[in-house]
Amino acid sequence: MLRLKGKAELFKFCLNSLNKGHRSAFHRIADIKEECKQISIKGWVTSLRKMKEYIFLDLNDGSCSKPLQIVVQKDNKIKALQFGCSIEAEGELVKNKNGQLELKASDVRLIGQCNIDDGYPFAPRKHYSNDYMRQYLHLRLRNNGFAALSRIRGAATTAIHNFFNTHNYINIHTPVLTSNDCEGAGEVFLVEPDYETKKGEKKECFFDNKAFLTVSGQLHLEVAARCFHKVYTFGPTFRAENSKSRLHLSEFYMVEAETALAQSTEDLVHCVGSMFQYVTKYLLENCSEDIYLSRKEIGDKDLTSNLENVVDKPFCIMSYDEVCNVLKGSKKLKTKFVPNMPLTKEQELFIVEHNDKYPVFVIDWPAEIKPFYMKSKDNDENRVMAFDLLCPNVGEVCGGSLREDDYGMLQKKLEDAGMAERLAWYLELRKFGNVLTGGFGLGFERYLQVLLNILNIKDSILFPRWPHNCKM
Amino acid sequence: MLRLKGKAELFKFCLNSLNKGHRSAFHRIADIKEECKQISIKGWVTSLRKMKEYIFLDLNDGSCSKPLQIVVQKDNKIKALQFGCSIEAEGELVKNKNGQLELKASDVRLIGQCNIDDGYPFAPRKHYSNDYMRQYLHLRLRNNGFAALSRIRGAATTAIHNFFNTHNYINIHTPVLTSNDCEGAGEVFLVEPDYETKKGEKKECFFDNKAFLTVSGQLHLEVAARCFHKVYTFGPTFRAENSKSRLHLSEFYMVEAETALAQSTEDLVHCVGSMFQYVTKYLLENCSEDIYLSRKEIGDKDLTSNLENVVDKPFCIMSYDEVCNVLKGSKKLKTKFVPNMPLTKEQELFIVEHNDKYPVFVIDWPAEIKPFYMKSKDNDENRVMAFDLLCPNVGEVCGGSLREDDYGMLQKKLEDAGMAERLAWYLELRKFGNVLTGGFGLGFERYLQVLLNILNIKDSILFPRWPHNCKM
Repeated sequence: MLRLKGKAELFKFCLNSLNKGHRSAFHRIADIKEECKQISIKGWVTSLRKMKEYIFLDLNDGSCSKPLQIVVQKDNKIKALQFGCSIEAEGELVKNKNGQLELKASDVRLIGQCNIDDGYPFAPRKHYSNDYMRQYLHLRLRNNGFAALSRIRGAATTAIHNFFNTHNYINIHTPVLTSNDCEGAGEVFLVEPDYETKKGEKKECFFDNKAFLTVSGQLHLEVAARCFHKVYTFGPTFRAENSKSRLHLSEFYMVEAETALAQSTEDLVHCVGSMFQYVTKYLLENCSEDIYLSRKEIGDKDLTSNLENVVDKPFCIMSYDEVCNVLKGSKKLKTKFVPNMPLTKEQELFIVEHNDKYPVFVIDWPAEIKPFYMKSKDNDENRVMAFDLLCPNVGEVCGGSLREDDYGMLQKKLEDAGMAERLAWYLELRKFGNVLTGGFGLGFERYLQVLLNILNIKDSILFPRWPHNCKM
Repeated sequence: MLRLKGKAELFKFCLNSLNKGHRSAFHRIADIKEECKQISIKGWVTSLRKMKEYIFLDLNDGSCSKPLQIVVQKDNKIKALQFGCSIEAEGELVKNKNGQLELKASDVRLIGQCNIDDGYPFAPRKHYSNDYMRQYLHLRLRNNGFAALSRIRGAATTAIHNFFNTHNYINIHTPVLTSNDCEGAGEVFLVEPDYETKKGEKKECFFDNKAFLTVSGQLHLEVAARCFHKVYTFGPTFRAENSKSRLHLSEFYMVEAETALAQSTEDLVHCVGSMFQYVTKYLLENCSEDIYLSRKEIGDKDLTSNLENVVDKPFCIMSYDEVCNVLKGSKKLKTKFVPNMPLTKEQELFIVEHNDKYPVFVIDWPAEIKPFYMKSKDNDENRVMAFDLLCPNVGEVCGGSLREDDYGMLQKKLEDAGMAERLAWYLELRKFGNVLTGGFGLGFERYLQVLLNILNIKDSILFPRWPHNCKM
């Protein structure tokens, strides 16, 4: 490196050199495609079999679901190796008699021990319940199934951004801290400085008004949709619901989009269906092995169910009234159907079952059971132009609507909901250069539950938070 | 549409049909490239000039920085049009004598009024201060400069994901709700349900332990880096700092990465520099007009300064000791330099100035002024393998370090910081299959401040939150 006179050392970056020529360079197992004279691999031992002269190790480096087999001669140094430890192995990559590439290691170096006697909570070849693994969030990702889930989450995130970028939606960072409770349901978290740690500081209102954690970015997205026509956001949202159900988290991710393209519920349904199919296709094309592994780890026998019904095949649309007729006629339901009430989880799943496990869009909902911002139908004030998307395993995955764009109608709805003062800015959007918009919010974890047939939503996110559980 | 017997209506999606064939279809100004007989455009009127027979309108639809000129014959209907209103215009797209495409409109339909007498806070051709505009966050995006900023933010988000995907980093959703205060600085927000709205419910500890808003995803990223080698996260982080400075927000975005590739401070510096240059190049290639517009709106005379020093040119590296020598020798500084103390903002900016406005990596910091998790240098326990990246306009934009991987050393550091109990899980990561990792966090808004020469960080985010300000 050169030094300028009396000035700083100059340092030239080269993008391509990031993974090359450094002493820290090592290969990823995912990139291994052919035989190679000399290669270095780092990773974690997932199994080991000691033979007379040789030891066979399976090494995983997190880059893919498949481990690499390593064959190394027994010696004293190697004896210390055990399940879970991290190593660096060097040697020749050759095809074995089964045609699989394996590493004939000339050197294996232990990096980090992993001792069960020292408290490591997992043993080789043992199956653990999800409840058990949830106690060890900091080590749970070592489990093959959860490693696969992490890669699928990452890929799904990429696919979601790709879908919206391709269709010219602008990514908007809607705020987490907000003064409004979008749904008006009161299930919000309140945010204040931790005054206990701020010694000597006077306890005062940090934000002047109450600050909540967002339950939806929709109202902020509507601001942006009235400047850009097509916008989306993908980030964390929060509910202070005291529920330990298999379908609720205190912190979860939502994909939300708002567009002035949508002029009818069908337009919206179209956009959601396209996104749903695009993301699912992307995952099937890019993560099929991880999807297979993830489903296998949870003991799923039918490794592709749900998926076939999502990709390529059409979705169903039913009106709320049609759903009522089906529910009224059924004798199998435990929960009694009451008209003009939200569907119970049992009823949602029944409707999906009734439609041969196809995802179902339920449209034209009664206004009285939906939030204030939804637009009434032209010919029927008691119905709103809204949909819920129901899917196998979880029921509702996504909901959306056209937004009330009539100033007078929205004013009345806000007053009825007692929110006119707090949401004066929201009403004002209808006064200045207004356009009709519609949008939706898709629960990302529930989508993963559908895709991977995950029973409990807590196992579809890396660091789940739910009542009495916010560890780490 | 077909109806199955007694079942739901089937609805076939087709990705390509999303923008075509719908009655809601209209063109984006950004896509207009050539003459066209019949076209429909929706957007907002940004200026209008009434001539004898014709009216000339500038229409903006948020898709790009350039408005489209619309020429329409005067009639009674048109008279209602004014600055800020939303319209739909149909007609022929032709080149005018200047070679610019303009719309000869056969029909212009008013969608939404925009009346200054009714309280619209902006008038045509008037310049407003940033302080004034910040009072109207729900309408501020209509300003050309802020619209450009929004598109640049969206594009930068895409570029960041692209960079890490290309280099095989896995996207990790680190939690917003957490039981630890990563930096140990005590500037955290506390989260509880809003018990006032939960009538009849007993006030109890929702999460058993205190739950904070994250100040950094680093500790959680380290969990993932010990399974995947290369991980990153990009999301909101929070500080309950009572600061109204031009460089602080209560909610801001951070790009954080953690990698087992890094074995030295130089490796880390390399990764950050590569990302910094990649994202900046991407923006110059994809948003040059928006960057130009954004800088012009804030009255910036030199529209490309800062940028040339970031792309292609090498960055500088100085050790903390070298920085000390420069600061000691200077007589221009108002703030007195004290050795083994953090740099003041004035000192940071002085160092950047000293290096001809190049970004400067300052490495080898005194351990006593850096957080517990940083790895000490092999030959000097009092120095840590860490860097701060200093840039023009804002000073520190990014900080990173190798993480202490020695169990005994980290245990001692945690005990000294009084965090041993709460971070037992973090220490345990060094016990089971440990590897050396390093990482960094880049403040996204500060990066935008550097890129666009934005004075106040509150104008680099759509919905800024700072003490006494959490509107909407």
